[in-house]
Amino acid sequence: MTDFAMIKAAAARAKGRVRRTPLLNSPTLDRLAGRHVFVKAECLQHTGSFKLRGAWSAISGLDPSEKSSGVIAVSSGNHAQGIALATHAHKVRAVILMPSDAPAQKIENTRTLGAEVVLYDRAQDDRDTLSHQLCAERGLTMISPYDHPLVIAGQGTVGIEIAEQARELGIQAARVLVPCGGGGLTSGIALALQSLAPDMIVHPCEPSGFDDAIRSLNSGKIERNQRSSGSICDAILTPSPGKITFPIMQRLCQPGVAVTDNECLRAMALAFSWLKIVIEPGGAVALAAALFHGQSFGQDDLIVVASGGNVETALFQRALAQKI
Amino acid sequence: MTDFAMIKAAAARAKGRVRRTPLLNSPTLDRLAGRHVFVKAECLQHTGSFKLRGAWSAISGLDPSEKSSGVIAVSSGNHAQGIALATHAHKVRAVILMPSDAPAQKIENTRTLGAEVVLYDRAQDDRDTLSHQLCAERGLTMISPYDHPLVIAGQGTVGIEIAEQARELGIQAARVLVPCGGGGLTSGIALALQSLAPDMIVHPCEPSGFDDAIRSLNSGKIERNQRSSGSICDAILTPSPGKITFPIMQRLCQPGVAVTDNECLRAMALAFSWLKIVIEPGGAVALAAALFHGQSFGQDDLIVVASGGNVETALFQRALAQKI
Repeated sequence: MTDFAMIKAAAARAKGRVRRTPLLNSPTLDRLAGRHVFVKAECLQHTGSFKLRGAWSAISGLDPSEKSSGVIAVSSGNHAQGIALATHAHKVRAVILMPSDAPAQKIENTRTLGAEVVLYDRAQDDRDTLSHQLCAERGLTMISPYDHPLVIAGQGTVGIEIAEQARELGIQAARVLVPCGGGGLTSGIALALQSLAPDMIVHPCEPSGFDDAIRSLNSGKIERNQRSSGSICDAILTPSPGKITFPIMQRLCQPGVAVTDNECLRAMALAFSWLKIVIEPGGAVALAAALFHGQSFGQDDLIVVASGGNVETALFQRALAQKI
Repeated sequence: MTDFAMIKAAAARAKGRVRRTPLLNSPTLDRLAGRHVFVKAECLQHTGSFKLRGAWSAISGLDPSEKSSGVIAVSSGNHAQGIALATHAHKVRAVILMPSDAPAQKIENTRTLGAEVVLYDRAQDDRDTLSHQLCAERGLTMISPYDHPLVIAGQGTVGIEIAEQARELGIQAARVLVPCGGGGLTSGIALALQSLAPDMIVHPCEPSGFDDAIRSLNSGKIERNQRSSGSICDAILTPSPGKITFPIMQRLCQPGVAVTDNECLRAMALAFSWLKIVIEPGGAVALAAALFHGQSFGQDDLIVVASGGNVETALFQRALAQKI
């Protein structure tokens, strides 16, 4: 099970290969939120999202026989690119199962990074059957995008950096708001901060209508979303928290906050204007929570993870057209 | 006169107040340029441009009597905001003379940061007469946006970071492409690299039709632009290189490269897609030179400064609409 030692080890393996992303802030965002808001810009990570961290951790932690037979991952975008980059660097074969309606650019990026992409039809094919079949036929190791101890450890390296960067800025206590899909990033950060900055409290943030983690934390058991699509926050529309991630979140996280698609678009526009970064909708849920749901977090300073920036131009233009 | 010791001293005074901005890269940009391209993202600096560095250096370097009587600066945008932030932090009074047709947001930002803004009419008023009058009447110290030894020293701290970050990435030799207005950033970086990384060669980059520095380096004397407006690269449309900056550039820089407005827009769109950063047109000239004028730089790796990100939404939308 993932612990702080595994996160430190993942950070050591990632040195020089995963970017230490900056912690940004703006007086205007502070004014809007009525407190200090710091933004951990993981959109500036290689491949445009934090997913590289978990992928790098998992691939660099494979044993020699797993390395030689290769891995498989299922993803429509960010995890796919993280796995593709990490396997390419480690000379490990990667098969990525992607839905045929995934954004063309994400499919192309994954291929360009050197992975073999196998497309499936969301309507006709059963993803799990297909992936297990490929696993068995080719002797591949499955790398889950979140429910995997080494992936969680990799995402936890964001927490190490947050603790270090907050210390440099003189921040002791804060609420740490994290975009939450399957919970790999949220649980990894919570584990790192438990060891390094116990006065920092982690809250998962989700899109309204896809608040499975929030409801699971409230009810004490894993809850599922009713829908699997219907939000612009495509990167974090996971059906439910993971079997490994949920107990960690249950132990370490405080209640989550849900935000609307429109709040995400406005947060994206504000990050464009005041931080000069590009955030994708799913990567903006925590910033939206900080800016528009501050009452959920007392008067505390907020540290927000902007988890990714892989947004299509047309959708970003929609964000820029928002009245902010 | 600015030397490396002054740059190091400026870096020491700026510690914790000026951001160490990341050096970013993308396999796609590398492919487009046919070599490694690294982007020093000064658009992520506080106030959205590198100008804070020079302003911080100058204000933190004032003597006590200058500090108590205050400063004046003339600027339509980025220098204004840098001076406003630096004076506010040092509790120094600042008067900023801005053209009345400067972008409303830049005027508002400068005021919000605590400076007194005095507007002048570009058509009717003589800027220099006005500023000298204000200087004399109020006993203010003038802080030039580029022709000032401490300002050059502050901008030179970008060069220190480039040298350090390049070393971390194992880069020994490279061409360093710098957006050039009055030459403060270009000459500061050149001075720092002369001491820290003598195999790095600095080239100024300018908008076509506003290539005063390029022509001055070619002719060996200070040349002026014929026009003072007519490019979207508003931040770097300075009439000529400075009296202090030009001799430094002449001694240390290699020939410059001019790029079109359209190339800047395409560079902005590519930085959006592949680096997830927002660059303003004037801040994108060096990236445009790297991507579209690579033949000017042999086969060497390129380090590009993205000097600012203060771009109006409508203009950024225009960049996103480019065919790239």
